[in-house]
Amino acid sequence: MRAVQVVGYHQNLEMAEVQKPMPTGPFDVVVKIGGAGVCRTDLHILEGQWADKSQVQLPYTIGHENAGWVEAVGSAVTNVAEGDKVIVHPLITCGLCRACRSGDDVHCEANQFPGIDTNGGYAEYLKTSARSVVKIDDSLEPADIAALADAGLTAYHAAAKAAKRLTPRDKCVIIGAGGLGHIGIQVLKALTPAELIVVDRNPEALKLAEAIGADRGVIADGTQVDQVRELTGGNGAEAIVDFVGEGGATSEGVAMLRGAGDYYVVGYGENINVPTIDIVSSEINFIGNLVGSYNDLCDLMALAARGSVNLHTQKYTLDDFQTAITDLDNGNVRGRAILIP
Amino acid sequence: MRAVQVVGYHQNLEMAEVQKPMPTGPFDVVVKIGGAGVCRTDLHILEGQWADKSQVQLPYTIGHENAGWVEAVGSAVTNVAEGDKVIVHPLITCGLCRACRSGDDVHCEANQFPGIDTNGGYAEYLKTSARSVVKIDDSLEPADIAALADAGLTAYHAAAKAAKRLTPRDKCVIIGAGGLGHIGIQVLKALTPAELIVVDRNPEALKLAEAIGADRGVIADGTQVDQVRELTGGNGAEAIVDFVGEGGATSEGVAMLRGAGDYYVVGYGENINVPTIDIVSSEINFIGNLVGSYNDLCDLMALAARGSVNLHTQKYTLDDFQTAITDLDNGNVRGRAILIP
Amino acid sequence: MRAVQVVGYHQNLEMAEVQKPMPTGPFDVVVKIGGAGVCRTDLHILEGQWADKSQVQLPYTIGHENAGWVEAVGSAVTNVAEGDKVIVHPLITCGLCRACRSGDDVHCEANQFPGIDTNGGYAEYLKTSARSVVKIDDSLEPADIAALADAGLTAYHAAAKAAKRLTPRDKCVIIGAGGLGHIGIQVLKALTPAELIVVDRNPEALKLAEAIGADRGVIADGTQVDQVRELTGGNGAEAIVDFVGEGGATSEGVAMLRGAGDYYVVGYGENINVPTIDIVSSEINFIGNLVGSYNDLCDLMALAARGSVNLHTQKYTLDDFQTAITDLDNGNVRGRAILIP
Amino acid sequence: MRAVQVVGYHQNLEMAEVQKPMPTGPFDVVVKIGGAGVCRTDLHILEGQWADKSQVQLPYTIGHENAGWVEAVGSAVTNVAEGDKVIVHPLITCGLCRACRSGDDVHCEANQFPGIDTNGGYAEYLKTSARSVVKIDDSLEPADIAALADAGLTAYHAAAKAAKRLTPRDKCVIIGAGGLGHIGIQVLKALTPAELIVVDRNPEALKLAEAIGADRGVIADGTQVDQVRELTGGNGAEAIVDFVGEGGATSEGVAMLRGAGDYYVVGYGENINVPTIDIVSSEINFIGNLVGSYNDLCDLMALAARGSVNLHTQKYTLDDFQTAITDLDNGNVRGRAILIP
Repeated sequence: MRAVQVVGYHQNLEMAEVQKPMPTGPFDVVVKIGGAGVCRTDLHILEGQWADKSQVQLPYTIGHENAGWVEAVGSAVTNVAEGDKVIVHPLITCGLCRACRSGDDVHCEANQFPGIDTNGGYAEYLKTSARSVVKIDDSLEPADIAALADAGLTAYHAAAKAAKRLTPRDKCVIIGAGGLGHIGIQVLKALTPAELIVVDRNPEALKLAEAIGADRGVIADGTQVDQVRELTGGNGAEAIVDFVGEGGATSEGVAMLRGAGDYYVVGYGENINVPTIDIVSSEINFIGNLVGSYNDLCDLMALAARGSVNLHTQKYTLDDFQTAITDLDNGNVRGRAILIP
Repeated sequence: MRAVQVVGYHQNLEMAEVQKPMPTGPFDVVVKIGGAGVCRTDLHILEGQWADKSQVQLPYTIGHENAGWVEAVGSAVTNVAEGDKVIVHPLITCGLCRACRSGDDVHCEANQFPGIDTNGGYAEYLKTSARSVVKIDDSLEPADIAALADAGLTAYHAAAKAAKRLTPRDKCVIIGAGGLGHIGIQVLKALTPAELIVVDRNPEALKLAEAIGADRGVIADGTQVDQVRELTGGNGAEAIVDFVGEGGATSEGVAMLRGAGDYYVVGYGENINVPTIDIVSSEINFIGNLVGSYNDLCDLMALAARGSVNLHTQKYTLDDFQTAITDLDNGNVRGRAILIP
Repeated sequence: MRAVQVVGYHQNLEMAEVQKPMPTGPFDVVVKIGGAGVCRTDLHILEGQWADKSQVQLPYTIGHENAGWVEAVGSAVTNVAEGDKVIVHPLITCGLCRACRSGDDVHCEANQFPGIDTNGGYAEYLKTSARSVVKIDDSLEPADIAALADAGLTAYHAAAKAAKRLTPRDKCVIIGAGGLGHIGIQVLKALTPAELIVVDRNPEALKLAEAIGADRGVIADGTQVDQVRELTGGNGAEAIVDFVGEGGATSEGVAMLRGAGDYYVVGYGENINVPTIDIVSSEINFIGNLVGSYNDLCDLMALAARGSVNLHTQKYTLDDFQTAITDLDNGNVRGRAILIP
Repeated sequence: MRAVQVVGYHQNLEMAEVQKPMPTGPFDVVVKIGGAGVCRTDLHILEGQWADKSQVQLPYTIGHENAGWVEAVGSAVTNVAEGDKVIVHPLITCGLCRACRSGDDVHCEANQFPGIDTNGGYAEYLKTSARSVVKIDDSLEPADIAALADAGLTAYHAAAKAAKRLTPRDKCVIIGAGGLGHIGIQVLKALTPAELIVVDRNPEALKLAEAIGADRGVIADGTQVDQVRELTGGNGAEAIVDFVGEGGATSEGVAMLRGAGDYYVVGYGENINVPTIDIVSSEINFIGNLVGSYNDLCDLMALAARGSVNLHTQKYTLDDFQTAITDLDNGNVRGRAILIP
């Protein structure tokens, strides 16, 4: 089959002809790819940023946001069958460690991450596990929802955690209405009646944010902290969900947070750097957020099935992978780039 | 009555003869002081560190850890009566704001803090509120438990929050077995079966910690991170309760924390300074902790009544206040210094 | 002032001229009534059903669903001022007992219930407490939202409890789309993305239910258990919110409940009568629901202010109270009857 | 191998020579039995009470409380290896359904129950699953802790649920200090500082209860409701954990429950039969409790390893199975009967 591979760092990806994967273990599932999301992380992989961490052997197939149809299953698979339309959770997890047994599979002690540390989904077929496939509603198409597998799932996870503590009287600030923020706003709208205040530098992004559920848009023009404090009666918001995490976002975000409030860290880049006396005297919390669990992905698919979460996509054929990568690198992708074999 | 007052910053406290307080508002309660804790914060007040923040007018009476007997009550007080033995919650709260209505009175929007921003308890009598007094068990004496009103309550609050998430398989690291840590260990022992690992520089403090509930003591001799990781199977602990918060404790503490773990910030001094990518990739949380609520104080008094929480005290007469202050400043107080009028 | 009073059981209410109430205690608040809901409980009071329980002395003024404007306040009131537009929580609570200190004021150990055990709001003025008044949004009118004070608050309380445990994949059955159910559906719609299945005997009520947020309507024609089981993949729903509680609703409701599901008891009349072996083997829960807390009322007012919760009302002048009572008794009130002084 | 089998209902069990089980599926685990608990359910099986429900084909091997050593593992098993000392969770679960993915494996949609619906552990070897085995501490012996696999696990599950909501000021009533109650008391003692009040008809059982953690013992001599209400200041307890569930225990238990309290149903026999108006007006909850999850069993083993939970056992050789059954049926077993191959 065809597969797009990393052949060296600081080199272009290359199309290769490789062996089509087959189920070998009892829980293996092979998925015929219907859509594979092109993610900024893929650019970082090419720059070598993940080389040490992943220890992956080159060449290997990239691509960690995948959806498609079940092609073949291992001997012990009971939850999906050939032909099922599925989205693929980004991690392959063991099912036996304490984290897996607690529904918290993202912290699996023995996980694999296709597209990062083993072959991924820029290809015709992907090998994953029965524990990683979620059947999707008939109304959804793999190419449309593939990017929910990782970017969307991360946004869902953080937004759902925040929603669990928000009440109708609370205000929630979303910093960043880009790729993840855009999903996060839709998820928050579906899960909580709290007032949603979205902060972004880009007026167009704010317009879109308001169209999909934001109650207020605040332009990050240097006055955003004052604006948010004014919108929150001078007190700050009960929750901040920060999809940016760099360029000063965190210290501004902390200044927008109410006493006893929660700061959800999603985007990353800079440090959280806050005096302990401020953490103690205002009794605020910083909550880390990794990608969502298998259950989170099922919940997100339920929202997607009823049209509560939508994603802009820009589609490319698998053969046209280089254009997709270049467009993303040049900021020419609106929404999410998707490769279709 | 006699009262020990701040008459100027960078000056000694002075004994003064002042008006005995009387209930003027309907919810006022006047307490005859049985014991007033001498706290490091009192030294900081004298150094002027709180002058700006509290905006208190000098002279005023210091002392924010108080217990005694109800001397007189306002017209609307129904929960205590003259003669009742009580401990005094450090804050006077309004009872009407959202925080107060939610049991989270510590975040009262209109609170007063006797001993900090109004007259406190280094005196024969203290004026507080019906909302701030907790009746104590017959078996407890004000002079013995006064220091639980603030130091103890802070430790209780953080420990109880941590205990709520700990299971019999979890490990909880307590950094610092000093004044607060010492209470925190006893509270954790009473509230959770998780394994308690205590880290301190002082071997004597560790010995005491083990006598009152610590399962393991780790000397902070530079190898403490490695020691804790070894005691936790290489993974780190599910929770860190940090009663130190300075001198490098926080970065060491973070290194002792397991993925998806909780870091309880109690002690303060330095900054929490952690890359957002680490917060995200290990999905850890930082939880701020202020003093406990009125309910926390009631719970702590229930533990004290059954002997689960004990405090070493070193007692001085009120007239001997200067000795107490000097002893504290010179590190000559074992446990907690208490003034008795 | 004019007030409508119970002068004897099994007798009509009578209009009387009584003393206008004045603040006497420090936390008293006198409200000029803008609207007073006429409730089925008022009919039960006249039938003497509450005589023993309330021990109220006749004559007294009836009416426990009230909203209006603050007329006068006691000396210690700081949260409202003369002229404020308010809704009145049905209970006067002490603020000092453990329940009040925990935000759970409905279980106050020393509460009063105006309209039930002391003078209520079928009158020009009502005396209540600072702890019972919630300022409402400018856009809301007392006569329109008075019935949210008790009927609406009860529905909110149960719906919010259920919503806290529901996920996007869950299904929630609402039994009864009448007065309370009608509010409950709107609240659930605002608070959870779970699928809402409404069961009622009346096709008109189901039509309205679907217009305000129900995803599915099921006619209770004897096949409702089978219909719900079919809509839930044969497994039953994760939650049942039962606003009926009589006429066989509870046994049918239990048959609609999934293993590990929650049954919220709101309406009452018959017994919950279930074999313990069924409770154990299916591990289901029965959750009691009284009226909501002060915080619940604040949250409900936040939803009302943004138009998420609406109530049909049929208005009468205070002088026309007998028509309102008669209409209610004869089933001629659509939505909620409101008296306007 | 030797195995004790049900050969017909209302007939004695019989020893048979059967094939030793071998791993056939990839997740199969064969355990060499070190101890198998003899449970009252086993008597009920012989009486035919489970025949319809389990649909098991006779003859089959009975025994659902098992512990021992891993004898052989399937090809995909990674969590245990030959020779490991293990306790066996009573259910074999699928690992793929929503319940399994949420850590709530007891509600697995495709479970098997060895000893009930397939071959169990009154034998030399038992076939179970990798998902069902928990490695135990070196200090524990299979024959000593086998009965914790089901009876103990049920008690743990209910007690841990109750403990999660109890505070140092709360009171918890345990009805029944027999087999399960005896474990429940030890678990509650380890997990909560709430006051434990144990109710039982048998003064000897109460004496034991007090020795292992009960704060108060109340003899069920007809005055138990009054006694408990007196011990709880006239208000009733915050929680009731009912290990009896028959002979009037539930109505007495409800009368011991405080407003807003929780009633944990564990024992079974009679109906919960309570007017909905009482459930609503006192806002109480009834919480069903099945056997614990895999995680619960891990937690319970952690408590057992540190000596917090102990069990009296009366040991028999496997060949002597009939004596064990007869002794249990005649009330001649103190603690728990265990068969040892």
